[in-house]
Amino acid sequence: VNLILLEPGDMSGPEVATLTGARARHAMAVLKAVPGHAIRIGMINGALGTGIVTTMTDRTVSLQCVFEVELPPRPRVDLLLALPRPKVLRRLWAQLAALGVGQVILTNAERVERNYFDTHVVTEACFRPLLIEGLQQARDTWLPTVTVHKQFRVLIEDNLTTLFPVGRRLVAHPGQPHANAGLTTIDSTERVLLTVGPEGGWNAFELGLLAKHGFERVDMGGRTLWTDTACIALLALIHNALRKKDHEEGTLSSQNTQSR
Amino acid sequence: VNLILLEPGDMSGPEVATLTGARARHAMAVLKAVPGHAIRIGMINGALGTGIVTTMTDRTVSLQCVFEVELPPRPRVDLLLALPRPKVLRRLWAQLAALGVGQVILTNAERVERNYFDTHVVTEACFRPLLIEGLQQARDTWLPTVTVHKQFRVLIEDNLTTLFPVGRRLVAHPGQPHANAGLTTIDSTERVLLTVGPEGGWNAFELGLLAKHGFERVDMGGRTLWTDTACIALLALIHNALRKKDHEEGTLSSQNTQSR
Repeated sequence: VNLILLEPGDMSGPEVATLTGARARHAMAVLKAVPGHAIRIGMINGALGTGIVTTMTDRTVSLQCVFEVELPPRPRVDLLLALPRPKVLRRLWAQLAALGVGQVILTNAERVERNYFDTHVVTEACFRPLLIEGLQQARDTWLPTVTVHKQFRVLIEDNLTTLFPVGRRLVAHPGQPHANAGLTTIDSTERVLLTVGPEGGWNAFELGLLAKHGFERVDMGGRTLWTDTACIALLALIHNALRKKDHEEGTLSSQNTQSR
Repeated sequence: VNLILLEPGDMSGPEVATLTGARARHAMAVLKAVPGHAIRIGMINGALGTGIVTTMTDRTVSLQCVFEVELPPRPRVDLLLALPRPKVLRRLWAQLAALGVGQVILTNAERVERNYFDTHVVTEACFRPLLIEGLQQARDTWLPTVTVHKQFRVLIEDNLTTLFPVGRRLVAHPGQPHANAGLTTIDSTERVLLTVGPEGGWNAFELGLLAKHGFERVDMGGRTLWTDTACIALLALIHNALRKKDHEEGTLSSQNTQSR
């Protein structure tokens, strides 16, 4: 943990927080908190900052907090993901938050098993702590929003303009040489929606519907990857393309200078 | 599994293979093999090909094999990795093979726990089946070679010129803006050695020794990632850079056209 994330409910004043439970234990056992000790903190969906330990009990750690004025930039990449096997999704949550995604849109597809939707890993009780773990690893505060859609066609035709109104739409699918041209022409000011299909691939109807709704294909060079590996690899490529554009345009965002 | 990998011991003639054990069960249960059925195969460290099922027993599947003349290209990226936590390394093996690495060089570092070297995950009995699983996922045949080095300094000063004689040396470490310039200047003809440190980071001596031996820094934009996420993300960036160079130079390798 490289940051302790606070929730509004932890605050007993604008600058006073009290850690309880696992976070208090972490502060005591791992960070060796003692009064006067400074701890990196962040307010969930808010600013980064520093907490000075004021008082401690055997179960709580109280902090006097100072927050930065500027919020960290919200990740500019969203992920539309055909619901993977529960085991894979469980591994993926924290890594997605660590890499940085604004939202995760989970969808059905022909090659998604229906019973995946009934599993614990698509419940907030499961994914919220994992997402927070990822944010604390990467020192970010922006909790990805998560929505679950059981009807692919309704999602793409009716809901997507609300969920992702403006930006670049990309779909990962093997089979098109030079397809990564899409990545090299990313504009640093736009949001990017990355779409990753089921491990068996999209069917022709799904690919057609995506194409009709402005999704451009990207691929990973002909190697077929597991969903989690593919998501991480493609998010890394997109973040790097956005970052490079920032550098080229001399508008290095605060994301690239913070936490150095 | 998108490919069944054969070992020399499976062959009872240059073109006759007999699958036993888990691979035979997979061929029967998942691939629904029946005589006449074609199965994608590859010879470990050799050619890709097709196996036509000839005869079957309840425990074996025999194949008449046709191999391609050209071998798949060997991955041009090697990984030098400070030994991560066993749990992380176990997750990583198959994904490394799926993404494509020529060799994995595991090393000690100050912030690596000594007892990690005594765990099952650094034994061939553990990692070989996982690497094969990754190759079968990505349809590759090149089994990464793995070496384990308990003395970082001896590795860098004495052994590295043998393990990695010629090519670009990169070290992932946060803290240097614009550091990914190293990635944009990769030459498609060179090998790349990516070095990823312990989760607590390299110490100053280790970074100095790497710099003295020609390692250039790259980073992931200020977000601190877990070792497995960082390895996957950086391998994706390097493979993409090599691939883009191939396209620009019009020397599209067979790696990019196979299995499409």
